[in-house]
Amino acid sequence: MYKLYYAPGTCALASHIALEEAGADYKAERLDFKSNQQNSLDYLAINPKGRVPALVTDQGVLTETPAILAFIAQAFPAAKLAPLDDAFRFAAVQAFNSYLCSTVHVAHAHKVRGYRWAAEESSFADMKRMIPKTMGSHFALIERDMIKGPWVMGETYTICDPYLYTIGTWLEGDGVDVATLPKVMAHRSRMLERPAVRKVIEAEKA
Amino acid sequence: MYKLYYAPGTCALASHIALEEAGADYKAERLDFKSNQQNSLDYLAINPKGRVPALVTDQGVLTETPAILAFIAQAFPAAKLAPLDDAFRFAAVQAFNSYLCSTVHVAHAHKVRGYRWAAEESSFADMKRMIPKTMGSHFALIERDMIKGPWVMGETYTICDPYLYTIGTWLEGDGVDVATLPKVMAHRSRMLERPAVRKVIEAEKA
Repeated sequence: MYKLYYAPGTCALASHIALEEAGADYKAERLDFKSNQQNSLDYLAINPKGRVPALVTDQGVLTETPAILAFIAQAFPAAKLAPLDDAFRFAAVQAFNSYLCSTVHVAHAHKVRGYRWAAEESSFADMKRMIPKTMGSHFALIERDMIKGPWVMGETYTICDPYLYTIGTWLEGDGVDVATLPKVMAHRSRMLERPAVRKVIEAEKA
Repeated sequence: MYKLYYAPGTCALASHIALEEAGADYKAERLDFKSNQQNSLDYLAINPKGRVPALVTDQGVLTETPAILAFIAQAFPAAKLAPLDDAFRFAAVQAFNSYLCSTVHVAHAHKVRGYRWAAEESSFADMKRMIPKTMGSHFALIERDMIKGPWVMGETYTICDPYLYTIGTWLEGDGVDVATLPKVMAHRSRMLERPAVRKVIEAEKA
């Protein structure tokens, strides 16, 4: 039995969907970000970074979305969530997820978490003004060069898909004109047709 | 024959060292960042992100350090650069590298690449002032919780080690007091004893 720590509206949704798609035996444990539960002593003992997601396994705790997604793909090979038998194609999956993590998610984080990198209110306002531009340009690259279609990696659904879907849910709130992103939007619709995705979205809302 | 695009002083050093440790047949191709060669049309055709590293393989181009490092480990299993037969331990390697990529490297990038996330000179100055604090706290976490010793993952050298070494070369320039990081510094010394590491450092200097 795995335990996934998450909070609604965060990137933990990607790991949550992947666990569901894999048919894993897991429990989703919600943290209350409003009361700063992610920085409680209890949670810091699980994940000293004070972030979600964190996946508790029999072997220990995993953090970082790209690592958790790769773990789920490898631990549940029957679910075929990544090309496990081809080092290049598996690395291409990792490269896509790494871009979402270290470039796209990081850009988004400058909207309300500018305090991670600066101290002045004027800097936070400046960062906030850039969000439509940065998120827009990163998603323009995804639209143009990175989605093979119908899924991110082509004909086969992989751990790239729940991650793209998750980060993509932030687009409208980040002021990006989604009409310029037809492939990304078609991908979102396709995701919402999947029972596992619908089930997890409902669970996080409940 | 692989081709690795790199620039001196960048995170591409990690992939360069890993190729050398793996005994790969590769050519290291230097880009001139001073003339903005990473944004030349020729290079953008290889890596549309305009960044290094990029690894050209027979199957296509890989980007993103954590993905390239995982690829090298999987493509050269005899080099034993990652615990390939254990999904959890492999994911733990990925989690460490993802933290370096999306948190530590990103923090460092705010020193001179603040224009990625803001537009005002005052914001750039603000970000620059935060560098010793952000890099210091991220490395304090690595020192306290993440280096098992003697190597990052314990007794066995992995793809985490060249990456930690590489990011760690920025510490003094980022104003972090390395005397507070004895494990990180011992790791650096241990890295510098390895012939592959010395060879690559010399090659990037030449």
